[in-house]
Amino acid sequence: MDFSPSKRGQEMLARLDRFMREELEPVEAEYHAALTGGADWHQWRQPAVMEKLKARAKEAGLWNLFLPEAEHGGAGLSNVEYAPLAERMGHSMMAPEVFNCNAPDTGNMEVLARYGSPEQQHQWLEPLLSGEIRSAFCMTEPAVASSDATNMQATAIVEGDEVVLNGRKWWSTGIGHPNVKIAIFMGLSDPDADRHRRHTMVLCPLDTPGVTVTRMLPSFGTFDEPSGHGEVVFDNVRLPLSNIILGVGRGFEIAQGRLGPGRIHHCMRAIGAAEHSLSLLCARAEKRVAFGKPLAKLGGNADIIANLRMAIEQARLLTMKAAWTIDTQGVKAAMSLISQIKVVAPAVAQQAADAAIQIHGAMGMCDDTPLAGLFAYARALRIADGPDEVHRGVIAKIELKQQKAARGELE
Amino acid sequence: MDFSPSKRGQEMLARLDRFMREELEPVEAEYHAALTGGADWHQWRQPAVMEKLKARAKEAGLWNLFLPEAEHGGAGLSNVEYAPLAERMGHSMMAPEVFNCNAPDTGNMEVLARYGSPEQQHQWLEPLLSGEIRSAFCMTEPAVASSDATNMQATAIVEGDEVVLNGRKWWSTGIGHPNVKIAIFMGLSDPDADRHRRHTMVLCPLDTPGVTVTRMLPSFGTFDEPSGHGEVVFDNVRLPLSNIILGVGRGFEIAQGRLGPGRIHHCMRAIGAAEHSLSLLCARAEKRVAFGKPLAKLGGNADIIANLRMAIEQARLLTMKAAWTIDTQGVKAAMSLISQIKVVAPAVAQQAADAAIQIHGAMGMCDDTPLAGLFAYARALRIADGPDEVHRGVIAKIELKQQKAARGELE
Amino acid sequence: MDFSPSKRGQEMLARLDRFMREELEPVEAEYHAALTGGADWHQWRQPAVMEKLKARAKEAGLWNLFLPEAEHGGAGLSNVEYAPLAERMGHSMMAPEVFNCNAPDTGNMEVLARYGSPEQQHQWLEPLLSGEIRSAFCMTEPAVASSDATNMQATAIVEGDEVVLNGRKWWSTGIGHPNVKIAIFMGLSDPDADRHRRHTMVLCPLDTPGVTVTRMLPSFGTFDEPSGHGEVVFDNVRLPLSNIILGVGRGFEIAQGRLGPGRIHHCMRAIGAAEHSLSLLCARAEKRVAFGKPLAKLGGNADIIANLRMAIEQARLLTMKAAWTIDTQGVKAAMSLISQIKVVAPAVAQQAADAAIQIHGAMGMCDDTPLAGLFAYARALRIADGPDEVHRGVIAKIELKQQKAARGELE
Amino acid sequence: MDFSPSKRGQEMLARLDRFMREELEPVEAEYHAALTGGADWHQWRQPAVMEKLKARAKEAGLWNLFLPEAEHGGAGLSNVEYAPLAERMGHSMMAPEVFNCNAPDTGNMEVLARYGSPEQQHQWLEPLLSGEIRSAFCMTEPAVASSDATNMQATAIVEGDEVVLNGRKWWSTGIGHPNVKIAIFMGLSDPDADRHRRHTMVLCPLDTPGVTVTRMLPSFGTFDEPSGHGEVVFDNVRLPLSNIILGVGRGFEIAQGRLGPGRIHHCMRAIGAAEHSLSLLCARAEKRVAFGKPLAKLGGNADIIANLRMAIEQARLLTMKAAWTIDTQGVKAAMSLISQIKVVAPAVAQQAADAAIQIHGAMGMCDDTPLAGLFAYARALRIADGPDEVHRGVIAKIELKQQKAARGELE
Repeated sequence: MDFSPSKRGQEMLARLDRFMREELEPVEAEYHAALTGGADWHQWRQPAVMEKLKARAKEAGLWNLFLPEAEHGGAGLSNVEYAPLAERMGHSMMAPEVFNCNAPDTGNMEVLARYGSPEQQHQWLEPLLSGEIRSAFCMTEPAVASSDATNMQATAIVEGDEVVLNGRKWWSTGIGHPNVKIAIFMGLSDPDADRHRRHTMVLCPLDTPGVTVTRMLPSFGTFDEPSGHGEVVFDNVRLPLSNIILGVGRGFEIAQGRLGPGRIHHCMRAIGAAEHSLSLLCARAEKRVAFGKPLAKLGGNADIIANLRMAIEQARLLTMKAAWTIDTQGVKAAMSLISQIKVVAPAVAQQAADAAIQIHGAMGMCDDTPLAGLFAYARALRIADGPDEVHRGVIAKIELKQQKAARGELE
Repeated sequence: MDFSPSKRGQEMLARLDRFMREELEPVEAEYHAALTGGADWHQWRQPAVMEKLKARAKEAGLWNLFLPEAEHGGAGLSNVEYAPLAERMGHSMMAPEVFNCNAPDTGNMEVLARYGSPEQQHQWLEPLLSGEIRSAFCMTEPAVASSDATNMQATAIVEGDEVVLNGRKWWSTGIGHPNVKIAIFMGLSDPDADRHRRHTMVLCPLDTPGVTVTRMLPSFGTFDEPSGHGEVVFDNVRLPLSNIILGVGRGFEIAQGRLGPGRIHHCMRAIGAAEHSLSLLCARAEKRVAFGKPLAKLGGNADIIANLRMAIEQARLLTMKAAWTIDTQGVKAAMSLISQIKVVAPAVAQQAADAAIQIHGAMGMCDDTPLAGLFAYARALRIADGPDEVHRGVIAKIELKQQKAARGELE
Repeated sequence: MDFSPSKRGQEMLARLDRFMREELEPVEAEYHAALTGGADWHQWRQPAVMEKLKARAKEAGLWNLFLPEAEHGGAGLSNVEYAPLAERMGHSMMAPEVFNCNAPDTGNMEVLARYGSPEQQHQWLEPLLSGEIRSAFCMTEPAVASSDATNMQATAIVEGDEVVLNGRKWWSTGIGHPNVKIAIFMGLSDPDADRHRRHTMVLCPLDTPGVTVTRMLPSFGTFDEPSGHGEVVFDNVRLPLSNIILGVGRGFEIAQGRLGPGRIHHCMRAIGAAEHSLSLLCARAEKRVAFGKPLAKLGGNADIIANLRMAIEQARLLTMKAAWTIDTQGVKAAMSLISQIKVVAPAVAQQAADAAIQIHGAMGMCDDTPLAGLFAYARALRIADGPDEVHRGVIAKIELKQQKAARGELE
Repeated sequence: MDFSPSKRGQEMLARLDRFMREELEPVEAEYHAALTGGADWHQWRQPAVMEKLKARAKEAGLWNLFLPEAEHGGAGLSNVEYAPLAERMGHSMMAPEVFNCNAPDTGNMEVLARYGSPEQQHQWLEPLLSGEIRSAFCMTEPAVASSDATNMQATAIVEGDEVVLNGRKWWSTGIGHPNVKIAIFMGLSDPDADRHRRHTMVLCPLDTPGVTVTRMLPSFGTFDEPSGHGEVVFDNVRLPLSNIILGVGRGFEIAQGRLGPGRIHHCMRAIGAAEHSLSLLCARAEKRVAFGKPLAKLGGNADIIANLRMAIEQARLLTMKAAWTIDTQGVKAAMSLISQIKVVAPAVAQQAADAAIQIHGAMGMCDDTPLAGLFAYARALRIADGPDEVHRGVIAKIELKQQKAARGELE
């Protein structure tokens, strides 16, 4: 067992760290102040500094780091190598877009790189890879429990040489972005097929007739502008069959392949967020004085710091092991670990943000620190991409099966 | 020991409950939708329905229920009698204002009723009691830890026949309200006096020269419009000595008397909020289906419901005991209990809102339910009015002293 | 609502407290040191001081306080009045027997007082009430999950004018006591009857042929001598029909009536145990010094004390409310509350013992303090008389039903 | 980063696993049944099977695996290589002695191998390495808080050519063993020296006049026979100066070096214990039926299993990282990690044992399963070798310092 990073990973991380300290973090406050519109999402604009930073990131070789496929311009990093970079990006809410590593574009690009036809890749993957356009992923629905994905009710029905989309989706992240052009829509094609062969993924340009973004949804009061999370109605949206990805009924197959690395990214960013909260907490604990002492020396505050350090350290190691297992044994072998990190990492990010808020007092709740945003981000992550409850169910099921095998009782 | 409510309390609660079900709750969604302005607080308006409901509440004899002093038009209820009414109001964010029982006006009215001069009462207490104007309380400061109130740095210096206010206050709740007219300001008058004789409370009309509300502070992304929480600069604000309440150096004395019943109100509203979350949770758990079953029958969800029921029930009993102790033995005898409920009740409200959000999935985070707002409210309450940490310190100190006495070791 | 104790309850408590401080607690260490035998239960003897204390308790009017029925020599106290006495007894492991208020004799006496025939009362209730003999309750079985009582497999079959007992029972508390003479046995009589009409309770003298106590079971290493918890085999034990209590198939009916007050007793003793742990914790925290300070002033120890005070206070109020509900509305109306206290009170007793052990360091684990015993007692109580899991299930079920009714959806 | 074990480590583990499954585990129940004496520690005997297994372990090359120093017959394994072996041994309470890897002998052998004089090594290290004798470590004292080691009051005073030991020690593990011959005693030599130069370690044969073992201390009711934890009085015990290890005043220096690897061993055994509990829990959860279903399918039990899997997995990775850090950067660089695992691993072992007990019901508390013993072992470990509180203090201190450095504020 060897916990040291690869030389290449170390160099990459140093480069990313320098970029973030020298170019990104100095303009972060200015960026957030320049965001406009609030609830009125039609007014959302991406502040100009974003395109400047994207150009600089490209020059610095810090672009599309998430993508393993070198043939598509990806950095060719393994999950183990990329993970610490994702963690570092997690310190800043604007970083993922700067480096073209933000959800859901990363997952969408992976899908297109792996399963897209050459035409699909030419039309949509290339501008996504270059950062020219943005995309959305339309899966979750208001009417049914998305924790059980087979509940999905929106439809993608083949009629002749067209596929027709109908239904209501929501929490479509990124759909408010000024540059968003395309969504991957997932819908039911054949309710009588085998449980995991019923759904289809379709590329749906957002200017297709019948697509209406009806509103943006706030999460704990914030809209995450200028990306946003939208509710979208698909009303008899007709698209050529060539917009189907991989084939009719293959939606779940694609979704499965998409999930493993995506969860590593999410979790490592959550760990970065946790470290960010902890660093703010420690700085405040040493500088703020009450009852004649810095807060760090009062009551149980040292315990809070120690507990966070232990929780973050463990969450990181677990996520790295999940990444390593995907790299060396594939997503299937990593199933339990992937569910484990999805429970553990958001929880530790929430715990860290909550503790940091408490030590900041009322200041921690308003926008004078990033903490309320970090809290909302972590809290949302305990629901997004499968709620904790579903992941714990997966872990327990695999555990019981493995224990049964160890007892020699498996049929 | 007798856990049954008084006949009068029971009747009051029934009347309040009917009013809320028949008149208030039917218009709540409309009220929230009519709130305008968002971050741009200068645009805040109180929707017209509020004044209509206030008038109806007066007619129904549901007005100023919080105020024990019958001579000022209070309902003359004991804390034990008022507490269940506060709990019921806690089910709705707009209820407290409808019944003229919202913070910080309640505390300010109590201060004026108890310590105000006849002139002060005439000028400010009367319009507050009638619901004509609103008030703010300017105590917390950005520069120092308010958990240790003796840190306060803003000044209220007597110069000749004037008192001069200087300093920066924030989290002044209610200061964004269209009807707000007056603030109670607390500042340092004599740094050399005894630790609890240094500060003075002064009535400061908000149109006095030198008073500037610089911004409204969001809490987890919400501004709690149209009341808001503001940052206020006092720059050489000069007021006649007659605006001082009770006397120079008596600020802490007033603050102490103000705290006991106020915390009962806060905590009972928090318990009402917890019940509200639990009721939404249960409704969702029975109606939402995943994996072929209602959520209530899946995994650990029944445990979550049971744990909340136990936590809420206990928090309520503890708060009722604190109320009863104040009523029968005074605030001083209730010190530990008051700190206990301040830790327990907001925590249970947060736990309930968090659990209800989780069972609602992504819907729980946006504004389609009141849950994100209930969460933010409860979370803020763990900081406001003394953070948990300070209250636990008080409880431990009293406990150690009582145990020492029980061991016969007290000098 | 009135939290003050009745005059009579207050006087009783004062009398009990004096007795415990002056007569019982001074001889407790000596009593425990005089216990003999350890694992070799055939050697168990009750130290002579016990009979002396029992005689003194009778003289002092502190005898059979648990029993409401005055006609059987009970004190005629309500549950609300008895509860604080049970709490006070919970400070000492030997107290319940001294006052003839120990499980399972209390429950057995209640059963006999309420459901026993005059002959049964004469033969068994009278010597139990006088403290002359002791009894056991044989219900739990090793082969099946007792959390689901309908699992019970031992049989009580009527054959002619005899009832024949067969089966293996364990965790029969008190069956190792030198004075134990009688057990109440519960067994399956008619597997085809309605689910709650299948089982029968039978009085079984322990010297009946076919009854064999096979071993005593330690709990976390302690045997709770001289009472013990035994495993008992019933092999074709034949008894006259007159030994059946109430009637064939009425076992569950009796068990239900037995449970409510019994759980109040258990829970109040657990709360007494928690207070005992907290008092030891506080004494140690003030006297033990490390790093130049008493432990009470180090790190999070004050928080631990505060958290215990809040948890104990709430558990007590909840238990008192359950007692009051039984007294005023009956056991059925108190079902949820009874399950709630059964979860809450043992948990707080365990938390208090664990915290007190930690602050005592290694000393807390050995027999130099009562803490390891208090811990084992509390931990066992989370399983005995229904595990936490089953009680949470009951609470959730009742809650969901009540919420449904509140939503007006109950059919 | 590479999570795969070394080839050598893997082979070793396979060999150890086979030995445990084929030779050790089949005789474990018999071994425990053959233990004699209970509280009467003078009767303690080591069942004969132990020497047989030790001989077999030697033959199988599974002897002294903990010892890195090959020149003393150690296996020459790194901490990373030994850790999984320690975990495997943690599944059995008798395993450590079988493989000559039990505390405190391991630590004592390390001390003698590293700091002992050739004579000391000849006389004591050799018979310890061969498993012929056993040893104790006399450090903790009843009169002072051992969490602060500088409190130590027993003395080791040089008088002429002798060192004189006085004081009372307790929790001296292993001192009840029939084969114990030697103790390492730590005492105060010079109260005026620098804080970490005051204490001296002395080899004290247990048959030296003035050494009296006064009693064995139970831990949660068990004596851990035949090793035991004893209280020992040293009354003017006079030994030649050659019995001093390394030199007068160098006790702390030795203690520091001893701690790092020892904590890895403890923690990995604790993780093995946790896995053992989890495996028993899962087996029971699938086989025991209540309310018509296996417990694994009831309520929150799947969550309990999932939570344990995540907690154990994380604790293991953290411990492996601590081991790797010691191996590659030394104990000093690993200080925070070593404290972290000391908090985390015993806690997870306790959590696992507690959960497994709960799912076993009353059976989990008695000796029909190893669970009560595993619980007591884990609980004791939260105190032994530094209580959680002290370790959290260390972690927080290092964290605050590192955060300060990251902020560029370190002087």
